[in-house]
Amino acid sequence: MLTAHTIKILQSLDKKKFRQKYNLFLVEGNKIICELFNSDIKIKEIYSTDPQKLGRTDIPVTHISENELKKISFLKNPKDSVAVCYLVPEEKAGDKDIQLVLDGIQDPGNLGTIIRLADWFGIEQIICSEDTVDFYNPKVIQATMGSFIRVNTVYTNLIEYLSETKNINIGTDMEGESIYTFQRPEKINLILGNEGNGMRPETEKLLQKSISIPRFGKSRSTESLNVSMAAGIILGQLFGK
Amino acid sequence: MLTAHTIKILQSLDKKKFRQKYNLFLVEGNKIICELFNSDIKIKEIYSTDPQKLGRTDIPVTHISENELKKISFLKNPKDSVAVCYLVPEEKAGDKDIQLVLDGIQDPGNLGTIIRLADWFGIEQIICSEDTVDFYNPKVIQATMGSFIRVNTVYTNLIEYLSETKNINIGTDMEGESIYTFQRPEKINLILGNEGNGMRPETEKLLQKSISIPRFGKSRSTESLNVSMAAGIILGQLFGK
Repeated sequence: MLTAHTIKILQSLDKKKFRQKYNLFLVEGNKIICELFNSDIKIKEIYSTDPQKLGRTDIPVTHISENELKKISFLKNPKDSVAVCYLVPEEKAGDKDIQLVLDGIQDPGNLGTIIRLADWFGIEQIICSEDTVDFYNPKVIQATMGSFIRVNTVYTNLIEYLSETKNINIGTDMEGESIYTFQRPEKINLILGNEGNGMRPETEKLLQKSISIPRFGKSRSTESLNVSMAAGIILGQLFGK
Repeated sequence: MLTAHTIKILQSLDKKKFRQKYNLFLVEGNKIICELFNSDIKIKEIYSTDPQKLGRTDIPVTHISENELKKISFLKNPKDSVAVCYLVPEEKAGDKDIQLVLDGIQDPGNLGTIIRLADWFGIEQIICSEDTVDFYNPKVIQATMGSFIRVNTVYTNLIEYLSETKNINIGTDMEGESIYTFQRPEKINLILGNEGNGMRPETEKLLQKSISIPRFGKSRSTESLNVSMAAGIILGQLFGK
């Protein structure tokens, strides 16, 4: 049984303000929840329509109805369980050889997709500007398909960070060097800008170089690629070298 | 002024059945509508909150209110205009050197993203199995960002098509040859399977080869990449060679 008070708190975790107030966020679906068991993420409690399936006894599990699940789930098609987890204290590890740096990415789906890409390519850390969408946002968590567990995502003052890093700062720009001729440096920050406006001018000043994905289609009307797709194509190239 | 009858018809164009019944589909937003003027797509009429901006007098334009626009738009945030267009009689051009072949793609966002990718890489034709999501679906049209105008998308019996094509049929498969060593044949069909189930076994039998994107991340839990992302990374590689 879920009290009205609990439902209200869980529903409020859609908003960053309340995630920070309660120090909690939600993870949905048994598949990803089971991955949490072997991670650094601490689970406070689980609400499940089928607790047997989780097979754990050391975490409080509350049996709930399908109807109750619908009330607390942020998904269009709710799965089986919702885990209430504690936010992880943010800690920037030292610079990694290949890092993604996000300058004001706003769309939760894009951030989630980029975290999933990072996981695929074995990129351990993503550095975000402070105004990048919060990665505990339920839509981000869902879009990562569990990859948020394996990729360290930290928020920081980008200008300070990019001024001090030992990695080479590489931006993306229609006028940049083709990814097909670009020689990847050993230590690299690949910087991706906001969906509408690109990188901030202050960020651009800190670039050592820009690269671009050549467009083979001939129409001038063709829109530039979505930022997460561009990230995928660039990483695909960088890792092939 | 929009009559209740017109609103009902326009709203019904969300469904393939009614698009076929009326032989119509919708395109939203002045930017893409203006691209239609120079294309083979015939516009029946336009409903606009600001007809002046369209600058065309040879197509009937009805001035509507923001409220009316909300009723006929399929977008969360409706733009300025909605164009009612005639379906284009489907015609398969001869085989192109590089084609995408879709075997049961179901998600409109994925199809739209794949059409946009094709446009970027100058791929002129996409061949779809008959059960692939309809490309006149408003969500597909929107996700292409106008690219549907430049890419010929045809629906056909894939088994027959793949049996007869002169192009080399290349599938994607976790066990396939790495995209980094794969030598691209001159004429190629790159085949992408359904989001959940991959290619049909009948399709797989018609492959000359399979290729894969190596995963550099070490976790076995990492989910495979989304089909449109995989398409982008593969095309990025194929075009770099």
